[in-house]
Amino acid sequence: MFQTFENIADPSKGKARVAELRKTLKSRGLAAFLVPRADEFQNEYTPPSAERLFWLTGFSGSAGSAIIARKSAVLFVDGRYTLQAAQQVNTSVIDILQIPQTEPSDWLKKTLKKGDAVGYDPRLHTIKAVERLTKTLTDIGATLQAQDTNPIDALWKRRPAPPQGPVSVHPLKFAGIPAGKKIAAIQKDLRKAKAGAVVLTLPESICWLLNIRGQDVPHTPLVLCFAIVPAKGRVDLFIDPRKVTPTVRKHLANDARIRDMDDIAAALDALGKAEARVQLDPNETSQWFADRLRGAGAEVMQKADPCLVPKAKKNAVEIAGARAAHKRDGIAVCRFLAWLDNNSGTGKLDEIATTKKLEAFRADTGKLKEISFDTISGAGAHGAIVHYRVSKATNAKLAPGSLYLVDSGAQYLDGTTDITRTVAIGDPTPDMRQHFTLVLKGHIAIAVARFPKGTRGADLDPLAREPLWKAGFDYDHGTGHGIGSYLSVHEGPQNIGKRGVAPLEPGMICSNEPGYYREGAYGIRIENLVLVTKPRKIRGGDRPMMGFETLTLAPIDLRLVDASLLSDDELRWLNAYHARVRKEIGPELGPKDKAWLEEATRPLAAS
Amino acid sequence: MFQTFENIADPSKGKARVAELRKTLKSRGLAAFLVPRADEFQNEYTPPSAERLFWLTGFSGSAGSAIIARKSAVLFVDGRYTLQAAQQVNTSVIDILQIPQTEPSDWLKKTLKKGDAVGYDPRLHTIKAVERLTKTLTDIGATLQAQDTNPIDALWKRRPAPPQGPVSVHPLKFAGIPAGKKIAAIQKDLRKAKAGAVVLTLPESICWLLNIRGQDVPHTPLVLCFAIVPAKGRVDLFIDPRKVTPTVRKHLANDARIRDMDDIAAALDALGKAEARVQLDPNETSQWFADRLRGAGAEVMQKADPCLVPKAKKNAVEIAGARAAHKRDGIAVCRFLAWLDNNSGTGKLDEIATTKKLEAFRADTGKLKEISFDTISGAGAHGAIVHYRVSKATNAKLAPGSLYLVDSGAQYLDGTTDITRTVAIGDPTPDMRQHFTLVLKGHIAIAVARFPKGTRGADLDPLAREPLWKAGFDYDHGTGHGIGSYLSVHEGPQNIGKRGVAPLEPGMICSNEPGYYREGAYGIRIENLVLVTKPRKIRGGDRPMMGFETLTLAPIDLRLVDASLLSDDELRWLNAYHARVRKEIGPELGPKDKAWLEEATRPLAAS
Repeated sequence: MFQTFENIADPSKGKARVAELRKTLKSRGLAAFLVPRADEFQNEYTPPSAERLFWLTGFSGSAGSAIIARKSAVLFVDGRYTLQAAQQVNTSVIDILQIPQTEPSDWLKKTLKKGDAVGYDPRLHTIKAVERLTKTLTDIGATLQAQDTNPIDALWKRRPAPPQGPVSVHPLKFAGIPAGKKIAAIQKDLRKAKAGAVVLTLPESICWLLNIRGQDVPHTPLVLCFAIVPAKGRVDLFIDPRKVTPTVRKHLANDARIRDMDDIAAALDALGKAEARVQLDPNETSQWFADRLRGAGAEVMQKADPCLVPKAKKNAVEIAGARAAHKRDGIAVCRFLAWLDNNSGTGKLDEIATTKKLEAFRADTGKLKEISFDTISGAGAHGAIVHYRVSKATNAKLAPGSLYLVDSGAQYLDGTTDITRTVAIGDPTPDMRQHFTLVLKGHIAIAVARFPKGTRGADLDPLAREPLWKAGFDYDHGTGHGIGSYLSVHEGPQNIGKRGVAPLEPGMICSNEPGYYREGAYGIRIENLVLVTKPRKIRGGDRPMMGFETLTLAPIDLRLVDASLLSDDELRWLNAYHARVRKEIGPELGPKDKAWLEEATRPLAAS
Repeated sequence: MFQTFENIADPSKGKARVAELRKTLKSRGLAAFLVPRADEFQNEYTPPSAERLFWLTGFSGSAGSAIIARKSAVLFVDGRYTLQAAQQVNTSVIDILQIPQTEPSDWLKKTLKKGDAVGYDPRLHTIKAVERLTKTLTDIGATLQAQDTNPIDALWKRRPAPPQGPVSVHPLKFAGIPAGKKIAAIQKDLRKAKAGAVVLTLPESICWLLNIRGQDVPHTPLVLCFAIVPAKGRVDLFIDPRKVTPTVRKHLANDARIRDMDDIAAALDALGKAEARVQLDPNETSQWFADRLRGAGAEVMQKADPCLVPKAKKNAVEIAGARAAHKRDGIAVCRFLAWLDNNSGTGKLDEIATTKKLEAFRADTGKLKEISFDTISGAGAHGAIVHYRVSKATNAKLAPGSLYLVDSGAQYLDGTTDITRTVAIGDPTPDMRQHFTLVLKGHIAIAVARFPKGTRGADLDPLAREPLWKAGFDYDHGTGHGIGSYLSVHEGPQNIGKRGVAPLEPGMICSNEPGYYREGAYGIRIENLVLVTKPRKIRGGDRPMMGFETLTLAPIDLRLVDASLLSDDELRWLNAYHARVRKEIGPELGPKDKAWLEEATRPLAAS
């Protein structure tokens, strides 16, 4: 199993640790100290060695931040995590506040007074975040003080060592483009922008650039490392050398120099000494890099990480890989759904059992490297918790007359998958069918959308919502995120949501996952991954239009579809999609599963 | 007539004037001087006395800017105006470049060298524009130099005097809320933000706030003036006192002090002396105000003009007025469309004749104060020119087998209107019908949209485009702009388009005007004004949703509708809309026009 089901709620340590931290605040003359859930790579997945927020507060969620002041302490989490935080945190010591209803800046304004100094670890906050913080504190008359050492590190006993997952080469038959060619393209842009170098601090960018993968964090094959790409010459890769096997060393020999992690400071100083113009991504890189470069005499140019867009635009080999990975994953998911239908009638299945079974079917493919995130296996009311993670303490049965929501994905060498299906356990109610069909209408609106060059994800997001809006419903998450190629299951810059301001470009892969959540009752989400297609001329039209190719292949539960709510075009899409699933997956299944698939993908007639 | 049809193309003066201006550049040590199409009010409509760009270059369009350098000169216009600019400007002296393909910043980077000084008139550029310019010039190593006097003013012989349109009171029965109450609400917000005052420089904001209207520019009842609203006490209104009648003086007595236009400088200095915190809108207010305030010791707070949102959210009286104005305007437009159908068969009607006739029908209402903009009266290929303005030189006949596009509006005391209809002259082609029906589908998508609190205009824009996108078409303008109440026909912050980032709020009025343009052949646009409705619960739904009430009442040409392309829901909307037009307008028409309306609004059957 790539996933555990332990309940890690333990609010017992917070009180003592906060008290210890306050002593340091006092000795350093600080009114408060900021503890974000972030490491120096500003990466979604942090290794245990960097889980300072968890160590201090007990909160283990993937997003949040704390502020410890002399007399008060507060943890900020979003709506996904308020319940979990309340279970994990000692609320007599640490208040829990929900963003965006209350922002840290509001709290700071209320709590601090003129002249107060607020400490922060500049390795753990992005340049943009520090810019915003500075503005907030200036308004109060307080100051932000970078700390050379993080006070938590001195207090943290038995702190785990940083991960040392071995690095592997991501072969050209999966990566599609040699590292040297990718580096050359970025160096060309650097010279055009008159930049001397770019510092890369996002591990997924470096993995993509150098065609390497690692095992430093769960679920995502990342190598925790930094890199400096000069306008000319070899890349400097800063990495724990124990991770680098001889094969990898050989693979990198022409393109990169391997240097110790600690050498990064000296390398930044050298750029400063040369008075270089150095690009940093203010949204992804921590303030420490900007401070160090400027302190040494370099000029910092704020610019988006140059790997983001080319990494997001999958090349022909990666696209072929994605199709193969989705077919393979589709077989596993179809076997799982057939098994579920055949076994859910007993009412004895539970969320952990189904999660294990799904992973087993994926492992059966013989190609599963990892799951791409902890499976969201939500029976009944748990389906309405958007980021539900099942533990032994919460493990619920799949009861007759309920819905079961399962959001899961796999890491294969040729591609990363992410799929959600919502399945009727026993007979669904008319409400369930109405809500499911409205979500399906939104899903189809994205699947069939055509759009011109320059269209941003934000422009498409409302298409998925309008059928729900018309009926008085909505969902409180984006419609789709970008996804990597045997890399992060969440990648930018593409995003189908309000913040999706990057233009969609051919080759980008996004999820298409509208939903509906009835608190305390059930959750519905239908998620396929889609690939942005090249602009193509439309018969009779003036302008070529992009569109989406759906990659994910698994039935959508027809017991939950009310065909009378679908237009002819929507019904045509559903039947054509199911015909494709039948054709591509059917031949790969055993006779019993195949018969199940035939039934599950039968054409629906207009009603 | 409120509109003229003269052709004002005259490129003969540009050469000598540019040469004169270059002498001043030399004497002032400037490498270049910036000439925007803007006045100190940053207002869409500039009076003749402020048309410096027109005086210098001959270009009379509503948007553009020139840069005169020592050896080169360039005029930047957008795609609407490239053709017109080429006719009006001496291109041997002034190059014409199209934005956004080439931005002024690109040209400056190419043309200037390190150490160059660029002159600008700080009264004519907003704070944000100067911020962007400064960044561009800093990158080059050049500097931006504010000029105390605009060099053009010294060269401009026979410059018209500033307008002196008399001010009138906008009575409470149209305005709905007394000035004193509006001022008090803004002052409350100022105190909350700890601001000492706000400087208002947008004439429409001041007209709204003080319930006054004027006659300083064509088509929009504006008073060119400035105002300072202190956190407490009376407003200072800076205005040419000759415009202010005793009635207006009496109306304002409790709320505002009337001061000379020139007193504004001293008033800003006084705020500085008091070290006040003063709000300015960086997108609407010119740099001169920020410079003057800071120079005198004030603290400038950048914040949106506090009148914009309350002005946009029409109150109950304004909403009732808008409905009455649209019914009145609908009667005039229906009479016009009936007349057009009865007379277009001859092939003798031309664009000027139809424009005059339409204005005459509006004047017949007895309530027409002005048209709200120069009518766009586009026969055949002229319909494809989005901002076409007919002149004697271009006046074309409405030929059989063509389309005629007419976009027009009126200013009534109770409301401002703006409507576009596209009419078949003789028999339309199948292409025309397909394109018209696709535009209609987009129009209906907006008309029937429901959306939650927080939805921005940008979120709805794609709903209007998707039917066109799917067929390979698009249009290069926004879907809808905000509109004032007996004020500007274009108002913010609401906007249904890519830049529409302000949330839509109940009471806002927008246009709904998707289109399609086939260059050299025809243009199609269907425009109604719509009112944002309050969030209402939907039967069976969880969340209340806003929506639109269509205000405009006039038939949509059924000869151009291909019912087979409409869904049942779309057809239902069209028939219900036409039934409403018939019911509301029919009883107000003479028998012949009424018979025409019956036919023009007949229900279409599903095909």
